[in-house]
Amino acid sequence: MSRFFSARYERLVPYTPGEQPKILNLTKLNTNECPFPPSERALAFAEAHTRPLNLYCDIECTELRKALAGLHGLEPENFLLGNGSDEILNFAFMAFCDETKPAAFPDISYGFYPVFANLNRIPYTEIPLREDFTIAPEDYFNLHSTIFLANPNAPTGLALSPEQVRAILEHNPDSVVVIDEAYVDFGGVSCLPLVKDYDNLLVAQTFSKSRSMAGARLGFAAGSAALIRDLNTIKFSTNPYNVNSMTQAVGLGVLLDEETTRANCRTIMENRAYTVEALRALGFTVLPSAANFIFASSDRIGGGALYQKLRERAVLIRHFDKERIRDFNRITIGTREQMDILLKNIREILEELP
Amino acid sequence: MSRFFSARYERLVPYTPGEQPKILNLTKLNTNECPFPPSERALAFAEAHTRPLNLYCDIECTELRKALAGLHGLEPENFLLGNGSDEILNFAFMAFCDETKPAAFPDISYGFYPVFANLNRIPYTEIPLREDFTIAPEDYFNLHSTIFLANPNAPTGLALSPEQVRAILEHNPDSVVVIDEAYVDFGGVSCLPLVKDYDNLLVAQTFSKSRSMAGARLGFAAGSAALIRDLNTIKFSTNPYNVNSMTQAVGLGVLLDEETTRANCRTIMENRAYTVEALRALGFTVLPSAANFIFASSDRIGGGALYQKLRERAVLIRHFDKERIRDFNRITIGTREQMDILLKNIREILEELP
Repeated sequence: MSRFFSARYERLVPYTPGEQPKILNLTKLNTNECPFPPSERALAFAEAHTRPLNLYCDIECTELRKALAGLHGLEPENFLLGNGSDEILNFAFMAFCDETKPAAFPDISYGFYPVFANLNRIPYTEIPLREDFTIAPEDYFNLHSTIFLANPNAPTGLALSPEQVRAILEHNPDSVVVIDEAYVDFGGVSCLPLVKDYDNLLVAQTFSKSRSMAGARLGFAAGSAALIRDLNTIKFSTNPYNVNSMTQAVGLGVLLDEETTRANCRTIMENRAYTVEALRALGFTVLPSAANFIFASSDRIGGGALYQKLRERAVLIRHFDKERIRDFNRITIGTREQMDILLKNIREILEELP
Repeated sequence: MSRFFSARYERLVPYTPGEQPKILNLTKLNTNECPFPPSERALAFAEAHTRPLNLYCDIECTELRKALAGLHGLEPENFLLGNGSDEILNFAFMAFCDETKPAAFPDISYGFYPVFANLNRIPYTEIPLREDFTIAPEDYFNLHSTIFLANPNAPTGLALSPEQVRAILEHNPDSVVVIDEAYVDFGGVSCLPLVKDYDNLLVAQTFSKSRSMAGARLGFAAGSAALIRDLNTIKFSTNPYNVNSMTQAVGLGVLLDEETTRANCRTIMENRAYTVEALRALGFTVLPSAANFIFASSDRIGGGALYQKLRERAVLIRHFDKERIRDFNRITIGTREQMDILLKNIREILEELP
């Protein structure tokens, strides 16, 4: 810390992103990226439609909002695009929480939620997951807090049904409920259709997972026109040009090629089923995942030890050194070849155990 | 405003970006963009060096920081990259100002400074420019505030010398002085070499003007390693993946082709001299600009009226309806052809006056 740093932030603990190490021939299954690049079709569209880079980007993201509205049966005014969904989530913490309106989220969820709350000096409650790691909707009734729920949740991969989300919305009519659907395309059910019915619902999605664009940075919020206007007030006071022209063009190209997105998701779900079956055969406990990762533990080896041994073999998964989930690892679902490398190495590690 | 919006921001007035209207054959001289795209060489490099988009971008912007360090005789740890320099400036307001450390900046300067201060609920003082629109360094001595100075200043185009900045730094040893050098490459002198000497200096630059990348969104801060660490604490609590892979690659390509950047800047300075001479011949007052725009007034027609009449003729410049500068317009320097269209239209407008 420099001698100039504001006392506001001197105890702030930043988010720890998944490692991006420079290990040769790494099998990288630690940050839930899509193993497939954007399609040739999407990239060709982007190349042909990128606004000249010397001119400012479209601050309204007009074409992307139109395309999203068309895809989801909503209006362009229901959408805000962001530089990744992290930016969107931070805007939502800023806009809809404060000293009088705390935040609430599960004790085990996306690790950025408490960071956003602390950054913005917002009080918050962490609500424990049930023993089986599921979210109990009734724990979120009448909280008088702005609620943040990853659905499917991370790192568990477990999903709420739209009916369960609906119950939470109806029991919090005076609070915004943010449903973070980063992983929804791998077996969850999106709450986007509920945007029309609930003025307190904000849905966040990202292009980083199912849409192969982690490196391009694109996310969006969907909600009532009034909620989106509030988020725009924050955006235009922070960084009006938040989504660059190249990312807007690639995003549009990817949206125009939904077939590829759907096919990639199907492949990942098949690879997930294959991996879950193989790990269970090796005695692992694997939570039923609706995401592009699985959360698994073994009674033969600790979570930290397995993480470390795989790392030594150039296979990177993610371990969270946190009570309740210390035995587990979060493993991104990649290509079939990547999953076979993972499984081969796990088998060898288990065989070498005393 | 929705019924959920935090009272923290209910009176926040967002920044008003320059218009991006969809007028046919528009001569767009309102947002200080570079009229030349990034070079073929820069773009070819970018295409060959963009990390696969399905993988996360490099959160450290390693290659860009190395390249900047090499160019400016500093270390990579002296640099932070941002999603445009607006993001960098917002981080600096967050990190180095608070209730106990107000902000200070000129009354006429970049319109985003008061927005950042209000967004972060930071008290601030606006220090009047002198009658001739210059900044008096002594007005900034011993302020016990974090100081933000655009150098050259906008919309005046007037620059402080490094000696004047040095005097401000030395008279504020316990305050950060942020020198916003968005326009420095068009005739100003950069304070980057002073980073080694002053632990209270933070220099911000953008790739949006001289580096033809307004639509790609890239900016950076340079300062002591300790100041940069503070800004990173904010970045990693906000949006660790703030600069996407495509922008990182284009930025690197542009840095590797400094010749083109310098040649473009020379052309713009020539076009500026040409335009200033022509406007003065038409009786305009034009401040001596060290930026890629000029600030000009006529005693024959008001600033707002000239702006409006040019707009009707599909020539867009920028007018600020603010006391002291209402008579002026800010005109971006474009290609020689664009300047000739501007001058032809101004001549016709003046001839039509009663």
